[in-house]
Amino acid sequence: MKIRFTKMHGLGNDFVMIDAISQQVNITPDRARKIADRNFGVGCDQILIVEAPTRPDADFKYRIFNADGSEVENCGNGARCFAVFVRLRKLTGKHVIRAETATGVLILNVVDKYNVTVDMGVPELSPPKIPFIADAEASVYAIDINENTANISSLNIGAVSMGNPHAVAVVDDAAAYPVELIGPLIESHPQYPNKVNAGFMSIVNRGEINLRVYERGSGETLACGTGACAAVVAGRLQSLLDETVTVNLPGGSLSITWPGPGHSVMMTGPTATVFHGQVRI
Amino acid sequence: MKIRFTKMHGLGNDFVMIDAISQQVNITPDRARKIADRNFGVGCDQILIVEAPTRPDADFKYRIFNADGSEVENCGNGARCFAVFVRLRKLTGKHVIRAETATGVLILNVVDKYNVTVDMGVPELSPPKIPFIADAEASVYAIDINENTANISSLNIGAVSMGNPHAVAVVDDAAAYPVELIGPLIESHPQYPNKVNAGFMSIVNRGEINLRVYERGSGETLACGTGACAAVVAGRLQSLLDETVTVNLPGGSLSITWPGPGHSVMMTGPTATVFHGQVRI
Repeated sequence: MKIRFTKMHGLGNDFVMIDAISQQVNITPDRARKIADRNFGVGCDQILIVEAPTRPDADFKYRIFNADGSEVENCGNGARCFAVFVRLRKLTGKHVIRAETATGVLILNVVDKYNVTVDMGVPELSPPKIPFIADAEASVYAIDINENTANISSLNIGAVSMGNPHAVAVVDDAAAYPVELIGPLIESHPQYPNKVNAGFMSIVNRGEINLRVYERGSGETLACGTGACAAVVAGRLQSLLDETVTVNLPGGSLSITWPGPGHSVMMTGPTATVFHGQVRI
Repeated sequence: MKIRFTKMHGLGNDFVMIDAISQQVNITPDRARKIADRNFGVGCDQILIVEAPTRPDADFKYRIFNADGSEVENCGNGARCFAVFVRLRKLTGKHVIRAETATGVLILNVVDKYNVTVDMGVPELSPPKIPFIADAEASVYAIDINENTANISSLNIGAVSMGNPHAVAVVDDAAAYPVELIGPLIESHPQYPNKVNAGFMSIVNRGEINLRVYERGSGETLACGTGACAAVVAGRLQSLLDETVTVNLPGGSLSITWPGPGHSVMMTGPTATVFHGQVRI
């Protein structure tokens, strides 16, 4: 089967985008693994398949496969690429696009040719729902860390779920922080029964932070959208940040807006279309 | 500038192939780096540009850029992909193709749709020409290695240049060998003034070896063509192998034929065409 695809990325998190509306495509986990392989296949972090919706309140449905063939629920970078892609492929002319995903309908607002705002939902702060083991909900929790090389014995973190659990620490200089040492220790910390994504942010000013995220199961990544949201939520709960914050990640910057508890986190960020191709799968 | 390209690989060593004959292309080191980037660009180990020859005894000229923008002299995997690519692009109908490279004219024999035989030249065995510091030329040299984890204090190696220097050790089980520990120690061994590629081969039988190569400056790779040649030369000089040997590398297998000193090493191996694309550079 020969298929057309487009390679896109959101802050370096890269996707093979496949239009399964105007061409017939059947992606199996095995095919996804082959496509994603960076030496033997097209190469990407994830594969995003656009399909017709199955519910009347959505314009499209999309599914995301990881490079290992597993299917993921959602991804902020993928959502932005999706919105630009369906307009590029002329599957829609809308600027507000409703996408059916495994976790519900996502509303995407195409700001301009490259930038998209995604409603990332209301952050969950209640410890049992994150899940995070704590006596009571708080804006900061001290957790024990025993790291001998960098000599770090405890860390103050904010605990937030954006659909996936996050621990976010404020550090002096994110660029210089030993993320490779501390990230794995937080990821597997006993207070996070389902493990956790670990964020390390340094505050530039009330409207700008630098952030590095050690993702659960993946290690440090170029740009974690839910991590950016969680960092701004954690920073705002500690009264360190304004409502709209520029988050500088290794792969580029996102703009995150969060009015406060009970409100959705809005994430605005760029996409890039790298090339169009045809591959036999 | 919008260019057409084809993504190919030889045993997982992957190339963005660009036909600069039927389209106008100007690849600068900066553009090469952008194209090769696996998250932000097309993604590849190397970029191979096919041009018109500048000498009458060649059918084509090709140049290879590394992912860091530097230009390399040659590459066996790239040579095979080149030969299949020029036929695929209908730039030639020949089965024997003469390619002008930075190191002279290479003769490529297209065996069938996917397989190509490359004349890899006559191996250099003289220590000063490799360069390797030794009292006299020999088929095996004992070199000192001081590795405490795997507890290895010395190693018997063959020393061969295939245009680039190689040290090849015969080991019991290449798959289980601590290449990540011993590779760097051989690479920077004081007897190799220009550093060296380190190969570790286990002998399956006189016609088949398993090989892993720790490449100078790159670490372990999926498939090193000159390393496969050097291993067969070293094994033949020790009377361990027949004239034609199947070399199993992590990325796949090559067939290497070497009659003996003074003769060229002939390498036959596969290529794969993964996809065709268009990219703006």
